[in-house]
Amino acid sequence: MSDRVILSSRTPSPVLVVGSVAYDNIETPKAKGERILGGSASYVSLAASFFAPTRMVGVVGRDFAASDLARLSGRGICLEGLQHDLTGDTFFWAGKYHENYNRRDTTDIRLNVFEHYKPVLPDSYRSTPFVVLGNISPSLQSHVLDQTVGKPFVIADSMDLWMEIARADLLKLLPRVDLFILNDSESEMLTGESNVFLAGPAIQKLGPKLVIIKKGEHGSILFHPEGLHFVPASPVTDLQDPTGAGDSYLGALAGVLAALGDSSHLSLKRAMSYASATASMTVEAFSTTRLESAGVSAIQARHDDLRRMVSH
Amino acid sequence: MSDRVILSSRTPSPVLVVGSVAYDNIETPKAKGERILGGSASYVSLAASFFAPTRMVGVVGRDFAASDLARLSGRGICLEGLQHDLTGDTFFWAGKYHENYNRRDTTDIRLNVFEHYKPVLPDSYRSTPFVVLGNISPSLQSHVLDQTVGKPFVIADSMDLWMEIARADLLKLLPRVDLFILNDSESEMLTGESNVFLAGPAIQKLGPKLVIIKKGEHGSILFHPEGLHFVPASPVTDLQDPTGAGDSYLGALAGVLAALGDSSHLSLKRAMSYASATASMTVEAFSTTRLESAGVSAIQARHDDLRRMVSH
Repeated sequence: MSDRVILSSRTPSPVLVVGSVAYDNIETPKAKGERILGGSASYVSLAASFFAPTRMVGVVGRDFAASDLARLSGRGICLEGLQHDLTGDTFFWAGKYHENYNRRDTTDIRLNVFEHYKPVLPDSYRSTPFVVLGNISPSLQSHVLDQTVGKPFVIADSMDLWMEIARADLLKLLPRVDLFILNDSESEMLTGESNVFLAGPAIQKLGPKLVIIKKGEHGSILFHPEGLHFVPASPVTDLQDPTGAGDSYLGALAGVLAALGDSSHLSLKRAMSYASATASMTVEAFSTTRLESAGVSAIQARHDDLRRMVSH
Repeated sequence: MSDRVILSSRTPSPVLVVGSVAYDNIETPKAKGERILGGSASYVSLAASFFAPTRMVGVVGRDFAASDLARLSGRGICLEGLQHDLTGDTFFWAGKYHENYNRRDTTDIRLNVFEHYKPVLPDSYRSTPFVVLGNISPSLQSHVLDQTVGKPFVIADSMDLWMEIARADLLKLLPRVDLFILNDSESEMLTGESNVFLAGPAIQKLGPKLVIIKKGEHGSILFHPEGLHFVPASPVTDLQDPTGAGDSYLGALAGVLAALGDSSHLSLKRAMSYASATASMTVEAFSTTRLESAGVSAIQARHDDLRRMVSH
């Protein structure tokens, strides 16, 4: 077992994570990274692994390096649900960030083995109490939920693409989601509301009782029946690569809820602070490098700094 | 005496406010306002008046309406320092906001009596312990400080214009300032740093021990030797006119410090929450209307909501 942040005396519940596993080529104003480990499932799982046992569901191709598998299993992530499809290569994405890092262009994308991928949950995963539907198509996200048993707490991410090309599927998924996480531009795209305080409640009407709208460097807001909660982004002075920040936030959030074993208002608040702290690690290096090397004491210290920043 | 938010059992210290008094024509995507009361000193003083006795220094022209004087004195603001220059009209500004309210253009500006104005402090104002240098030229701000006696706590605002055309004057002023407040685009203009966590410390090196960088709807950050502090913006669902939000923040901040009678880290934190709450009132209507009508219980309620939003 890898080291974890200890949040409670109870045994942490496990987290199931589904999403993409990818090799990325990334160009920022400062540097380039080639064929680096990426994909939503990689970031989400690594972040979650700092808080709770993590089960990863996804697919990799014949080119996927044993050393990258070792990086995931090295953090104690269960890879039983990771399919190896030897008929093709791993999903590949290339992107380029603009000067201010606020915009990025996709310069190349090859679905490869992801094109015909249908997630299959191993039997041992089906009753996992916390399920993270990372950013894949909403129909695949629904397909994963169909395979679960019991009533897991379901956290889902999405992206602008699905709001454009698979809106009906997404709207069918949302009533099955407990907590939907998206960023401010996506919340505007989904609801037509540019004001997040109007967009949040509009999304709650689509199904999820709980909504978190992320505003990047400006923090994140929870819409909860018991009240709003706001958490700033952890200060970052050496931004290297924003890729995976949202996924790391998502993973840490789910990991903390699983560690605490509930999804109360208070647990969600605690989870958001850890999520913000963990996401700030990811952006300080390319790929998952900084996240992997972070260590529980660095995450805890950043979390404590963040809490101090908003406390009297 | 007008009603005030009671923050402490001590008698509040007075606040001295210098800035512009103006008539504004404002056009937003939703509505228009013509010849409405504006100017930095008006907003700062009205906001401060909810917390501490407020002394206003500025100039108005022959067209300034008695009813507008009554609005200021109706909030208990001392107008002994407000000059009436009958040789011309009151400073006039016209501006138009773009669709998202994040940009505005100045469409007309007439300095009128402000053109040759030199602030003169009445003798009774000279030893005011809290001094707010609202947004006027840094040489006029320095001229006001020259007339003070003792060691007041000095809070200063500025704007992009002075950073462009009066940078040397501003750099001469800053070492005399205890707390400098500016927004994120101004902090980048002043330091060349787009990352606020780098810009803040860079501004501290220019003189002020304390710096607050405002990020509009995304909240504000205090740079303090004892640590960063972050306060979100109070949620606003019915934005009408952003004009004066920054000035209202500034006034409430100064008012709270004066009410508490010190500028400790804790007092600054408390002041920032009230500043955020008060500024959110201003933007819900044109001019100072909503701010004037707010009432202490509405400000207190919004402050309490804001504190709840960040607390566990």
